Amino acid sequence: MGSNTNAISITRKKDFSAWYHEVIAAADLADRSSVRGCMVIKPWGYAIWENMQRVLDAKFKELGVMNCYFPMFTPIDLFAKEASHISGFAKEMAVVTHSRIENIDGKLVPTSPIETPLAVRPTSEMIIGESFARWVESYRDLPLLVNQWCNVVRWEMRTRMFLRTTEFLWQEGHTAHETETEAVVLAKKIHELYNWFITDVLKIYAIMGEKPDHEKFPGAVTTYTMEAMMQDGKALQCATSHYLGTNFAKAVEIKFQSRNGGLDFAHTTSWGITTRMIGGLIMAHGDDNGINTPLEVAPYHIVIIPIIKNERSRAEILEYCEKIKISCSSHRVLIDIKDTSSQNKRWDYIRKGVPIICEIGERDINGRSIAFTRRQPKILKDSCEFDAFSHVVNQILEEHDAALYSKSVELNTSKTEKNIKNFEEMKEFFSNEMPGFVMAKWSGNGLSLLDKIGVSIRCTPVKSEKSDGKCILTGEKADTDYIFARSY
Amino acid sequence: MGSNTNAISITRKKDFSAWYHEVIAAADLADRSSVRGCMVIKPWGYAIWENMQRVLDAKFKELGVMNCYFPMFTPIDLFAKEASHISGFAKEMAVVTHSRIENIDGKLVPTSPIETPLAVRPTSEMIIGESFARWVESYRDLPLLVNQWCNVVRWEMRTRMFLRTTEFLWQEGHTAHETETEAVVLAKKIHELYNWFITDVLKIYAIMGEKPDHEKFPGAVTTYTMEAMMQDGKALQCATSHYLGTNFAKAVEIKFQSRNGGLDFAHTTSWGITTRMIGGLIMAHGDDNGINTPLEVAPYHIVIIPIIKNERSRAEILEYCEKIKISCSSHRVLIDIKDTSSQNKRWDYIRKGVPIICEIGERDINGRSIAFTRRQPKILKDSCEFDAFSHVVNQILEEHDAALYSKSVELNTSKTEKNIKNFEEMKEFFSNEMPGFVMAKWSGNGLSLLDKIGVSIRCTPVKSEKSDGKCILTGEKADTDYIFARSY
Repeated sequence: MGSNTNAISITRKKDFSAWYHEVIAAADLADRSSVRGCMVIKPWGYAIWENMQRVLDAKFKELGVMNCYFPMFTPIDLFAKEASHISGFAKEMAVVTHSRIENIDGKLVPTSPIETPLAVRPTSEMIIGESFARWVESYRDLPLLVNQWCNVVRWEMRTRMFLRTTEFLWQEGHTAHETETEAVVLAKKIHELYNWFITDVLKIYAIMGEKPDHEKFPGAVTTYTMEAMMQDGKALQCATSHYLGTNFAKAVEIKFQSRNGGLDFAHTTSWGITTRMIGGLIMAHGDDNGINTPLEVAPYHIVIIPIIKNERSRAEILEYCEKIKISCSSHRVLIDIKDTSSQNKRWDYIRKGVPIICEIGERDINGRSIAFTRRQPKILKDSCEFDAFSHVVNQILEEHDAALYSKSVELNTSKTEKNIKNFEEMKEFFSNEMPGFVMAKWSGNGLSLLDKIGVSIRCTPVKSEKSDGKCILTGEKADTDYIFARSY
Repeated sequence: MGSNTNAISITRKKDFSAWYHEVIAAADLADRSSVRGCMVIKPWGYAIWENMQRVLDAKFKELGVMNCYFPMFTPIDLFAKEASHISGFAKEMAVVTHSRIENIDGKLVPTSPIETPLAVRPTSEMIIGESFARWVESYRDLPLLVNQWCNVVRWEMRTRMFLRTTEFLWQEGHTAHETETEAVVLAKKIHELYNWFITDVLKIYAIMGEKPDHEKFPGAVTTYTMEAMMQDGKALQCATSHYLGTNFAKAVEIKFQSRNGGLDFAHTTSWGITTRMIGGLIMAHGDDNGINTPLEVAPYHIVIIPIIKNERSRAEILEYCEKIKISCSSHRVLIDIKDTSSQNKRWDYIRKGVPIICEIGERDINGRSIAFTRRQPKILKDSCEFDAFSHVVNQILEEHDAALYSKSVELNTSKTEKNIKNFEEMKEFFSNEMPGFVMAKWSGNGLSLLDKIGVSIRCTPVKSEKSDGKCILTGEKADTDYIFARSY
């Protein structure tokens, strides 16, 4: 591969969507399947997810949240008990109606219809709420703090790998509390945790915000969200935390004996993050040579490729590779002994976003040196002495994550427009290719204008302060800033 | 609670099934749900499962098996491509037929029928095999070694918590190989690993065996199994590993360019262990005071209960509890500060099978001592000096697991009958309450006799040697030993 070509044949600039799918294939993250809208998450992609799980799961447990497992089926009658909830999900549910398949006249048909059809969970507020109702009698039983890691199904019409698939994986946390204050505090604490995860762990600049009413989770009182800009300027909703008020508690009767002897409804929350964030990583950090993976979630930090030109030196080279591995054993290190050319391997691991790739041959042993390629801030070959390596590694890895984050901040800063005056200017801004975000004031009216240009209101940033101004859509008085963007 | 009563109101001897369900409730392992045949796995039960996952997952990875995630839906046409496979599962499948729910005349009904109905996975040979077919071109692409941790659904008519539920959790490993030899070696290696897990980790005596043809997994050439005796004398199939020959490879066309240039079908395996093993733990190790959990999978090894009789000493007592926790920090330790009586807490943790329960009050601080209750080999109160505690803990924990295992061995030895001569004697043996296992020779014929007495052939032990003898069912010549038992 020459120095003027890239490891991904289509550039982000030329066709972001085609680039995205080529990166997924090139880094071997996922594959299509024969099931409409469902994907296969392959080992390299799944390893990223396992790392995300490990980091988040430990933090949830620190907050006293305990993992459980609830049925994936919800009887449709139960699902319908919260009116806005069912209307939000009814159009995209996988429904189980039969419990048997029979061959009738050479054709396979479902038989044995079941009494009440079952929705395959698109989310679990109702089925978990129903357990909560059984578990809570008095205020002493509160708070309840549970989480589950599982699969969910939403029958999406247009699917896109990781970002929007019929089935996906997520964690869903559900809590019940004595008071509104406690529930809101918990929902915000989780919002802060997601902010830490996306910013400090995934190294993606994102905006902590609150959804406007028309964009809230079906049945929620407040939806807190993390919105990040992808490299094509579109917004990705990365994670949400909902304060659900007593809406769900009333629907499934989570009632408890209060401190003053009365009977109160619990205040509940729910919150989740999904495998969509693997897509987010690709679109936030990927480049024209493949993905880039922040250290905490990278399957490997260092890959060592032995270059064995003749069998005589095989044992010696492998031994040297082992020594290198041991010298940086606090990192995730792979020695790849597969029987393919080292150049092909190097480019494979560049596409897979490995921060440091070593290629070790006789020359390295003789010189007691280590030849390597670093991935960030740009692909660069280098070498160092064996004894210096562990120090060099620490420095490169630190720079690796710092580079990812600073590029993400730079993208956001350069593509967030705060000086747009009216809808005409906004329309023009969004007629550009890969435009970015607009931050502007909004009164709560005039949403139909946005529909016409395919733009939505992502959130109001929690850190922005109110000030007098004019609504970007209607020109009315308005005091609150919102983020406007195209989105996934 | 007096010394002559037990923490579980029904004894194993009186009503094993009622005892089993009371233990699940008393140890707070799981709960029923509103979905037919589905259960909720509660935090204490799920923590056991997470520990099982941790131990097994590390071992799978050592073998080079990589975690993935495949769609939970299989189009029914694809499922039917392997004839014995579909006939084995068709009667108990949850089938998705619609993608929407609508309110029509006040009634919720499934609408938007989907083109090909989808089976919710009862197992994933077909959907994973189809991916394998895409991934394999040449012998260089083999072996493929993947695993997934996920939920599965089998529409069982009679369900029982953990042992037989409509939905359950498991791991399913799937591999594809160049040759029969390699595939069989892998299937046996996994069989050995399951043997290690059940014996050395779960401390349950179990028989490594091979299933007779009529008990094999639908579509398998060979099914290796682990069969353990529960305290009511019934057998529990704990884990299975299947060599599938080229049956599935032919059904979904996993073909590859062989070393000699021809086109061969891959040899595949599959293997799994499920949340049913939590039920196995209960029935193997539980007693009339609750569950017992072997160390590797116990949610906690030590629980410390502070006894705070007046607020003045609260800080001092909690500080002492922290010191105890730090002194045995290599174990999983919980300090329980909930506001209920220490005696209630002690009995709660006895029911939950915690190996060591400390109750710490002013007296312990003054005497620099630690009062504790051990769970095995029987419930016993004791105390020791603070400085001796970490040593005492190590000894008690070692004895704890040793006691569980020796009781399990003792159960098996005392309840396995090897001297039964004919079917009449066997019939009499199984007419006893909680009879146990019969080991006897079998020719391959006469199975209908067994159906009449509700007994099945569990396996032929891999370690038993052939010798001349007579079939227990037909009196014909037979040279192979089999295990006969009632089973779950």
